[in-house]
Amino acid sequence: MSSESDPPASTQSEEPESLSKKAAKKEAAKQEKLRRRQEAALAAATSSLSVDSEEDPLAANYGDIPLLELQSKTVANISDWTKVEALNDSLESKWVRIRGVAQTIRAVGKKMAFVVIRENGFTVQCVVQVQPDQVSPQMVKYVTALSRESIVDLEGVVSVPGSPIKGASQQVEIQVRKLYCVDRAVPTLPINIEDAARSEIEIEKALQAGEQLVRVNQDTRLNYRVLDIRTPANQGIFRIQSHVGNAFRQFLLSEGFVEIHTPKLIAGSSEGGAAVFRLDYKGQPACLAQSPQLHKQMSICGGLGRVFEIGPVFRAEDSFTHRHLCEFTGLDVEMEIKMHYFEVMDIVDRLFVAIFDSLNDNCQKYLEAVGRQYPFEPLKYLRQTLRLTFEEGVQMLKDAGVEVDPLGDLNTESERKLGQIVLEKYGTEFYILHRYPLAVRPFYTMPCPDNPAYSNSFDVFIRGEEIISGAQRVHKAEFLEKRAAACGIDVKTIATYIDSFRYGAFPHGGFGVGLERVVMLFCGLNNIRKTSLYPRDPLRLAP
Amino acid sequence: MSSESDPPASTQSEEPESLSKKAAKKEAAKQEKLRRRQEAALAAATSSLSVDSEEDPLAANYGDIPLLELQSKTVANISDWTKVEALNDSLESKWVRIRGVAQTIRAVGKKMAFVVIRENGFTVQCVVQVQPDQVSPQMVKYVTALSRESIVDLEGVVSVPGSPIKGASQQVEIQVRKLYCVDRAVPTLPINIEDAARSEIEIEKALQAGEQLVRVNQDTRLNYRVLDIRTPANQGIFRIQSHVGNAFRQFLLSEGFVEIHTPKLIAGSSEGGAAVFRLDYKGQPACLAQSPQLHKQMSICGGLGRVFEIGPVFRAEDSFTHRHLCEFTGLDVEMEIKMHYFEVMDIVDRLFVAIFDSLNDNCQKYLEAVGRQYPFEPLKYLRQTLRLTFEEGVQMLKDAGVEVDPLGDLNTESERKLGQIVLEKYGTEFYILHRYPLAVRPFYTMPCPDNPAYSNSFDVFIRGEEIISGAQRVHKAEFLEKRAAACGIDVKTIATYIDSFRYGAFPHGGFGVGLERVVMLFCGLNNIRKTSLYPRDPLRLAP
Repeated sequence: MSSESDPPASTQSEEPESLSKKAAKKEAAKQEKLRRRQEAALAAATSSLSVDSEEDPLAANYGDIPLLELQSKTVANISDWTKVEALNDSLESKWVRIRGVAQTIRAVGKKMAFVVIRENGFTVQCVVQVQPDQVSPQMVKYVTALSRESIVDLEGVVSVPGSPIKGASQQVEIQVRKLYCVDRAVPTLPINIEDAARSEIEIEKALQAGEQLVRVNQDTRLNYRVLDIRTPANQGIFRIQSHVGNAFRQFLLSEGFVEIHTPKLIAGSSEGGAAVFRLDYKGQPACLAQSPQLHKQMSICGGLGRVFEIGPVFRAEDSFTHRHLCEFTGLDVEMEIKMHYFEVMDIVDRLFVAIFDSLNDNCQKYLEAVGRQYPFEPLKYLRQTLRLTFEEGVQMLKDAGVEVDPLGDLNTESERKLGQIVLEKYGTEFYILHRYPLAVRPFYTMPCPDNPAYSNSFDVFIRGEEIISGAQRVHKAEFLEKRAAACGIDVKTIATYIDSFRYGAFPHGGFGVGLERVVMLFCGLNNIRKTSLYPRDPLRLAP
Repeated sequence: MSSESDPPASTQSEEPESLSKKAAKKEAAKQEKLRRRQEAALAAATSSLSVDSEEDPLAANYGDIPLLELQSKTVANISDWTKVEALNDSLESKWVRIRGVAQTIRAVGKKMAFVVIRENGFTVQCVVQVQPDQVSPQMVKYVTALSRESIVDLEGVVSVPGSPIKGASQQVEIQVRKLYCVDRAVPTLPINIEDAARSEIEIEKALQAGEQLVRVNQDTRLNYRVLDIRTPANQGIFRIQSHVGNAFRQFLLSEGFVEIHTPKLIAGSSEGGAAVFRLDYKGQPACLAQSPQLHKQMSICGGLGRVFEIGPVFRAEDSFTHRHLCEFTGLDVEMEIKMHYFEVMDIVDRLFVAIFDSLNDNCQKYLEAVGRQYPFEPLKYLRQTLRLTFEEGVQMLKDAGVEVDPLGDLNTESERKLGQIVLEKYGTEFYILHRYPLAVRPFYTMPCPDNPAYSNSFDVFIRGEEIISGAQRVHKAEFLEKRAAACGIDVKTIATYIDSFRYGAFPHGGFGVGLERVVMLFCGLNNIRKTSLYPRDPLRLAP
């Protein structure tokens, strides 16, 4: 399949569509010119890379696949390919074809090379050894000259070695018979995947043994995110994230919720405050929604009953903490309630137990991949989620010698401390704190009936950090106006929102969660940038 | 449950959490003041609405529920409530409790009233008739004085009338015993749900009979969207939309795709062009993503294999057509391909047949609700989707007497015409047109190998309108640079994107779909504003 043995001319005949014979002559001339220019460009791009195989009778077994062929081959039967993840000893002695990334290439003399091939975070060791009529010395030379992270197609026979394979996830080897390069990586990568995949423990251990291993810092990782994502831990993190989103939706759909999509472009200033991105919308002042709060409540007024949304949320805050982003994925829920805000907490309770169970049941290999680089203890949670009132929380802190304002909010430190106390006392790292002081909640929060200094609201914590905020909302327009005014909000700017409650409004409540925080805290990670695919913070707008 | 028979004092005792006895005296005084102020406000808000029931011994059977009670009732067992949708003759003679909207209220003399109660688009007729020891004349008076669209709780006995009920979806009645108002709508609504739910056919028919019925125009509907959404057709549309999103995801997850969330805040100018919303990002020039194109491709470079995203897409175009929005929900897919762009088309084919099947199998009652207001024929589609080349399409148009540029794009009119020809010839309203001229596709589109005037790309049509655009992408950085330059794009502005392909890139392709268009065209609707919950167009930024 080198360019000599399988030239473009023969490749073209495999293309399923033939040129229409009716094409105008004028167009044909123009196309021909374009084609010649493109072919010249392609030849220039690949000629310097292809191997000199004139003298090798086994040259058809290796080489660079020309671009032209990657544009034109008819559909291969997908069953012709094996996923690296699926390679195990049940395939012993079987011929397999895989496509993956050449993660490491190591020559052993001139007659043998080991190549570790990676696909979606899983790796397999492949052996290229000179054998008469099958593998030529030129082929070994070709393989050892490939750059790391190049994409290769490879065929060979599965073998099961006597001892465990350390450098790969799959415990079989492939005895390579054919190897073609699909796309070459630049010879010097900005970061090596091996380095990016290394745990702190490995680095420390090596240091104690006198060896200085490369530590890739967070900013470098994010600058070269397409390389960084290739580590097993990151492959795990983003599959876990996908799983959380799906578990969230499946639970809510099964409970009669409707998925909605509300606008991110909002007139005026969203929910107010400085933390808003402003822009010009066809001459009108506009901003990016800080949450779907107003529109999800309006959807309840519209009679949709129970709704949820998964979508981006924008916060122009100057927060440089480990847990804030300027853009994150909000998981938002809003629902009619018959009688009490506990109905919302019941959904939170069952929803998150379902998500955690589903992660533990279905994502074990991804959780392990994360844990190998960033070790963590499995999350401790109860079958029925613990509920404490804010006052009880304040008292528990006080008993532990931590004084907090009984009608203020908890700061991050107090939240952590309370998390520790709760863990010791109740054996859970996931709990609900409710009846927050009204003064620290948004204007649309329903006050407590027995004491308007408190509210029908709650926060939820994982490992001592807040991940969910929720409440019953005020559904009476007149009362909502009063609350907004009391909170210093210009009622005129939210007139459409308030008017929504004048046409008959159901009592309702809801909550919002940050997807990245759920994944970060479930996996015990220390920075939210690790669970955002392309994070945005006050300094980072790329890639 | 009028305020007299069930005063706030007794309600408070039902509150599960009691005030902490340890609250500081100073705080208690402050709270008491706040509480008194709030109670006065609540009393003022409800006093004018409550009925004078001093002389009615049956007063406990009706009345306005005070707000205080809606803040405080302990959780009712959800099984105590019946959904309107679930009311049928199997419940005959059973006692039920429902909450819903009073859609219409009609008095028959002073001793009887009919109330149609609506919940999530389903309706039931309820009869309030004077009966000794159960329903008083005052109760009938109270009910007839309620404003339309007020929220009510209602208890009574299910009965099955001898003849069909015309004005409601459920074919049973409720003989009302108790009725409480949860929230009152303003007496005069900006639009009546009955008017908003009326079909054109009804209006025409009435006109022929000499009666002029109200027709609510599109802009009025959108201005009062929380009322407009309450029509059965709209309740159907947004549940169908939710179902499409879920069918899309479930199919892709079952095929090994990973759901991702890419940033909407982008440095520079997204994919270029004027149709971009610009903003200031902490002093950096930024814009809103016109699609997740660049980031979903980068995720493929990152080794995620197959990805999809559901999220908002922003287009600052000045398009005032029936099919363009400034913000819509993009369904985006990107995947490694082994050999050919047909692998992407195979996914499109199976994915959409699965979505259509799922809608027909699971959403029949919602489709019928849409059809009652906006009659449409079920979509005709084949088990295996028809594929035509662009050249074949051009020829079919030519044969029908329509001349189009063989290397240009089809305009909306030609697309419609071709849709008609295809329907007549192949009996399908869903088909794929592929091998588009390269000149009309974005710079990252892979040219055809046999003729670079064409490309490895496709569009997909429903009922003669384009809904999907897809293609194989250029995965070689050098070639991508050339293509960008050839399309007049400043390569420096997309350097991060192009660099993503220098570290070993898989051949890949993908496509994008607009969720609102899928729903619009599946249901044969004439305007995309009907399938966007809160549409954004060049003139509309609210609600």
